[in-house]
Amino acid sequence: MRNDGRQKNQLRKVKITPNVAESAEGSALVEFGKTRVLCTATYEAKAPSWLLGTGKGWVTAEYGMLPRSTHQRIKRDKAANGGRTQEISRLIGRSLRSSVNLAGLGEKQIIVDCDVLNADGGTRTASVTGGFVALALALKKLHGFAEIKTLPLIRYVSAISVGLQGNEMLLDLDYDEDSSISTDMNFVMTNEGTFVEVQGTAEDTPFQKDHLFQMMELARQGCEQLFVAQAEIVGSIFPLKK
Amino acid sequence: MRNDGRQKNQLRKVKITPNVAESAEGSALVEFGKTRVLCTATYEAKAPSWLLGTGKGWVTAEYGMLPRSTHQRIKRDKAANGGRTQEISRLIGRSLRSSVNLAGLGEKQIIVDCDVLNADGGTRTASVTGGFVALALALKKLHGFAEIKTLPLIRYVSAISVGLQGNEMLLDLDYDEDSSISTDMNFVMTNEGTFVEVQGTAEDTPFQKDHLFQMMELARQGCEQLFVAQAEIVGSIFPLKK
Amino acid sequence: MRNDGRQKNQLRKVKITPNVAESAEGSALVEFGKTRVLCTATYEAKAPSWLLGTGKGWVTAEYGMLPRSTHQRIKRDKAANGGRTQEISRLIGRSLRSSVNLAGLGEKQIIVDCDVLNADGGTRTASVTGGFVALALALKKLHGFAEIKTLPLIRYVSAISVGLQGNEMLLDLDYDEDSSISTDMNFVMTNEGTFVEVQGTAEDTPFQKDHLFQMMELARQGCEQLFVAQAEIVGSIFPLKK
Amino acid sequence: MRNDGRQKNQLRKVKITPNVAESAEGSALVEFGKTRVLCTATYEAKAPSWLLGTGKGWVTAEYGMLPRSTHQRIKRDKAANGGRTQEISRLIGRSLRSSVNLAGLGEKQIIVDCDVLNADGGTRTASVTGGFVALALALKKLHGFAEIKTLPLIRYVSAISVGLQGNEMLLDLDYDEDSSISTDMNFVMTNEGTFVEVQGTAEDTPFQKDHLFQMMELARQGCEQLFVAQAEIVGSIFPLKK
Amino acid sequence: MRNDGRQKNQLRKVKITPNVAESAEGSALVEFGKTRVLCTATYEAKAPSWLLGTGKGWVTAEYGMLPRSTHQRIKRDKAANGGRTQEISRLIGRSLRSSVNLAGLGEKQIIVDCDVLNADGGTRTASVTGGFVALALALKKLHGFAEIKTLPLIRYVSAISVGLQGNEMLLDLDYDEDSSISTDMNFVMTNEGTFVEVQGTAEDTPFQKDHLFQMMELARQGCEQLFVAQAEIVGSIFPLKK
Amino acid sequence: MRNDGRQKNQLRKVKITPNVAESAEGSALVEFGKTRVLCTATYEAKAPSWLLGTGKGWVTAEYGMLPRSTHQRIKRDKAANGGRTQEISRLIGRSLRSSVNLAGLGEKQIIVDCDVLNADGGTRTASVTGGFVALALALKKLHGFAEIKTLPLIRYVSAISVGLQGNEMLLDLDYDEDSSISTDMNFVMTNEGTFVEVQGTAEDTPFQKDHLFQMMELARQGCEQLFVAQAEIVGSIFPLKK
Repeated sequence: MRNDGRQKNQLRKVKITPNVAESAEGSALVEFGKTRVLCTATYEAKAPSWLLGTGKGWVTAEYGMLPRSTHQRIKRDKAANGGRTQEISRLIGRSLRSSVNLAGLGEKQIIVDCDVLNADGGTRTASVTGGFVALALALKKLHGFAEIKTLPLIRYVSAISVGLQGNEMLLDLDYDEDSSISTDMNFVMTNEGTFVEVQGTAEDTPFQKDHLFQMMELARQGCEQLFVAQAEIVGSIFPLKK
Repeated sequence: MRNDGRQKNQLRKVKITPNVAESAEGSALVEFGKTRVLCTATYEAKAPSWLLGTGKGWVTAEYGMLPRSTHQRIKRDKAANGGRTQEISRLIGRSLRSSVNLAGLGEKQIIVDCDVLNADGGTRTASVTGGFVALALALKKLHGFAEIKTLPLIRYVSAISVGLQGNEMLLDLDYDEDSSISTDMNFVMTNEGTFVEVQGTAEDTPFQKDHLFQMMELARQGCEQLFVAQAEIVGSIFPLKK
Repeated sequence: MRNDGRQKNQLRKVKITPNVAESAEGSALVEFGKTRVLCTATYEAKAPSWLLGTGKGWVTAEYGMLPRSTHQRIKRDKAANGGRTQEISRLIGRSLRSSVNLAGLGEKQIIVDCDVLNADGGTRTASVTGGFVALALALKKLHGFAEIKTLPLIRYVSAISVGLQGNEMLLDLDYDEDSSISTDMNFVMTNEGTFVEVQGTAEDTPFQKDHLFQMMELARQGCEQLFVAQAEIVGSIFPLKK
Repeated sequence: MRNDGRQKNQLRKVKITPNVAESAEGSALVEFGKTRVLCTATYEAKAPSWLLGTGKGWVTAEYGMLPRSTHQRIKRDKAANGGRTQEISRLIGRSLRSSVNLAGLGEKQIIVDCDVLNADGGTRTASVTGGFVALALALKKLHGFAEIKTLPLIRYVSAISVGLQGNEMLLDLDYDEDSSISTDMNFVMTNEGTFVEVQGTAEDTPFQKDHLFQMMELARQGCEQLFVAQAEIVGSIFPLKK
Repeated sequence: MRNDGRQKNQLRKVKITPNVAESAEGSALVEFGKTRVLCTATYEAKAPSWLLGTGKGWVTAEYGMLPRSTHQRIKRDKAANGGRTQEISRLIGRSLRSSVNLAGLGEKQIIVDCDVLNADGGTRTASVTGGFVALALALKKLHGFAEIKTLPLIRYVSAISVGLQGNEMLLDLDYDEDSSISTDMNFVMTNEGTFVEVQGTAEDTPFQKDHLFQMMELARQGCEQLFVAQAEIVGSIFPLKK
Repeated sequence: MRNDGRQKNQLRKVKITPNVAESAEGSALVEFGKTRVLCTATYEAKAPSWLLGTGKGWVTAEYGMLPRSTHQRIKRDKAANGGRTQEISRLIGRSLRSSVNLAGLGEKQIIVDCDVLNADGGTRTASVTGGFVALALALKKLHGFAEIKTLPLIRYVSAISVGLQGNEMLLDLDYDEDSSISTDMNFVMTNEGTFVEVQGTAEDTPFQKDHLFQMMELARQGCEQLFVAQAEIVGSIFPLKK
């Protein structure tokens, strides 16, 4: 049993609250246990300049942490510009792009901001999962206003972490688990059972091929549940098929 | 009658939710209508270096806006470093310091972060009002842990805006009112009926002395109500006297 | 009697020397006692982009301090980018804009640089007062060269500080007075007896409404004298009416 | 057959030239085909401050590109501070740390700089591979000078990329292949056959679990050859065991 | 004859006004015709860290331009950080150090700020010439207060420009001359007839050895006059010997 | 005899290897003894904006050092932005421009990057010397592709340092000599025997006119040999005439 009483293969309580930001085209507050991330999607009428004339659009993401979302307060400039922040922003952006038909979007851009209100591990996986909901809500709204002709969503994406300690595996690590575990992997998956991103780091002891396979399976089980949580909000826009 | 049906001398619905940030020594989510600001207070065991050896502590504040807290998304670096951001941070810091006996605090520092989740006018006045609650809760907690011997709170502070258009005055402006009004003043008051800060700018038509007097009276009425809202949360720590 | 022998309601010696910068469209060296600020006005043929198509122009200001204008040398990057610097720049800009008919200026911009050569308190009030002269001289010159059809000056602005210690009030604080006083207020006034900006901060003891009224009256008396000093230079361009 | 005549499972020509930087404690120029990276290892007598008192040391890495190492010249500030640059620096650092017993290193630090002289794909995998050699040479030298008591190397690390297009897999992608391929994965492996990092991104079509397994096997074959190339230089310092 | 009626070998009117900055340890306003530079010298009780334990002090300089010291307004950040600004700062620093016995100064530092109030060519040569006076006045003052035991001045330094067009040479170029001339050289000399710095750039046509000799002689004549102007102020502190 | 056995008037071994960077329009690795600089020339189809409409092009340079090109590792941000770096970049740019007919180049730009792989004194003189070769190779290539109608090379430029200690002079200083010598001068010369740049600094003892003459002669002898080394590579493009 884990600190908070969960089974090894059990997610923390997942909650996604849509439309929490009045101004944004789409938004969602996502909670993985005590981790809370506010995701907003902003529409921009033109794509980045390097897509000019291609007919394709872009989806990008920016990740941030409030200074006191963590145990130790983070200085604002460090929170905004650190290497970790940029790395996670890029991961979220790539993940969300995989859910969208960029040609169908046309030469427009959606910026998804994921701001961590409280951090207890898994902020990047929660950001992908909630960011997808904010993105889908924004695309729905824009579609409604006829700025985008066909809803360019092509699949669901969600993300979850898996940890490895010895031969044991834990799903959806909280901060304390993440700090003490040997190998921490993040998986971004689609509702088709395929993978968009696989990122794993062995802090201490390098891991074996077989362990990776088992972690992938555990992640798949977790993401299945996340797709259901996402579908409760965006299923009427874009039905979930398994 | 105003857009949202308020009387001219009526505040928007005020709501203060304490302890919203698990990690912070003190925290509060303050809402003035649709304006929502997350205030956290962080304790640091040492004061800024220029206070070394004086026996005095410091209270400072940092104000920020989430990129999509506003109608138009703000770029992160602009949100963090603009002149307006720094000016408001300094105002909040000065206001909160006036509620604390800095010698009683000792050579420590409290940093109050005020992050705007949604902006609909009055973010700086909401920040002062909610920041006071976060600060008081942090001081209480630290006092409990014996890091600070005597609770160094000496008075309540809150803040409110008043607008002037022709001869008409409006209390607690929302964004639309703020954008269209001729003169916009912000008052930071104490529960003793005195003023900590008075800041007013005539955008268009300079204002007269008599108008300022009337605006001060209107602000006083608004702040009285804010003190009551603050006292509902921190009154047991530091009773409100009028 | 004050340190330098002044009465409580007496200004320091005020001196405004026009046309001190050969290259600038307008310029003035303003002295409030030992405080000396070099003000230059620069004409730009186009307004900021956000005014495009509105037919309106803009007046903005930038405030700076030479590194050794103060007792302790200030590092150059701190002098240029600190929160205080930006806050004062914004105050000067707002103040000067109130003296100009921006529609009459057309889609042009005037940048007023106020660089402190020596700082002995009151640098922001001297900057507003001298900045107005530099601005008026620039507008006159541009008007002469037909780039601006009608002289768009609509009123005089000047600024002065007032301090409060106990029940005593002092006009036009020098550095030593400013450092030791309880409440320091800055007033920006027009020659019509109205106020453009009121900014006051109680460092220690919050102040009462009545004190503010008395400070406003004292400021009015000071600004009257500043308008006369300004009119000696720009009166032939734009006569002073009281 | 590939553009340059290679088999799908064939590495480009790998060349590692040791001791190319006279000043550095350890250095190597690594070439994967036309990709050339200059790796230098710098010894610092103290560890980062957050390790103070732990008895542990640190290995970190910084990755850079010369402005004209690429087809399009990169501006220097972008080359140094972009998100991609920081992400790769962090990856190299984590990878190299896995080869070192940080407690055995003691409270010291090794900084490995990997500067790309010419970029033709695979700069991060070449950096890990060459960085290991520079690090090992530096540790050997320091060990010789008795600053480090026991050689703290615990395993070899190297890295290679694998691409996936449809059902086809390619080992060690060059720039043209990398630009056109659907999924690009990077594997950091040890000579024990285990994995330190697995990073894969599906640009277009998400990939399946089985494909990942096959890519891992291909990477393993590539890394085996890289260990041999590394051992030719550092084998006398730290023998390669398979 | 030149634009302003000068002979080819004639300086502009030189004026040095001492003690213009109340706060600085030493200061001088130097004028070369319409070029005006405010030079201040600041004393710091400790030398830069890399001189710790050597017993030697340091003299450094920072050069700046007010935004509207020039025909076209310069943006503040560009004025402060451009390559030209840093290059000139370094030149002034090196030049001034050559006039001081750094061991005699002890582990202290003098920072000489040279801020251009108006620029009409020759700002760097005026800065060296006026900076020397500010430095000498500061050393005198510090010597008086016994912080420095022996006056560590060892020689006078001044600087002047010479231009070359075809076979003609011009002393002390103003802005218009400097903009149109082929070769522009700056010489920093001592009162002993020796050179501290020689910097020359051929914009168009490279120059010949013989031309350089003639320019050096012309510079010598100019600097002789600058030493006399400096000695009128600092001669009683440190007599000028030729 | 010098440390490395050279005569006082002897260059270190000079080696220039062309075409070392596959992507660049022109490139050369230049070695002055252990000093190694990688020079690349990049073509840009448009000139800087301030040359728009003049028909003239531009040649600029950027100088950088790899972090561990020196005895003490340099931090990357310092290596890129320090005053010294910018000063040297400007020197190289001016020197290379003197070899080109900018009107003949047309409204295009060549950027020459000089990145120091190993620093043992003379990095700026090696950069000018090798930068000329990279520039010439790029101009040849562009000429071949008809983007530039006439080869706009007008003369050779190279550069060398000379040091002065007492009455002794040394040609082409290495790092140890440069650190200990009294006066260090850098000369940029043309194959016509004329000078483009003369820069000399007396660290300790100011130097005399006669010494400068002798240093110029020594530099001339050194540059003669550098022109021969350059001509071995670019002589077929643009023959060397003496």
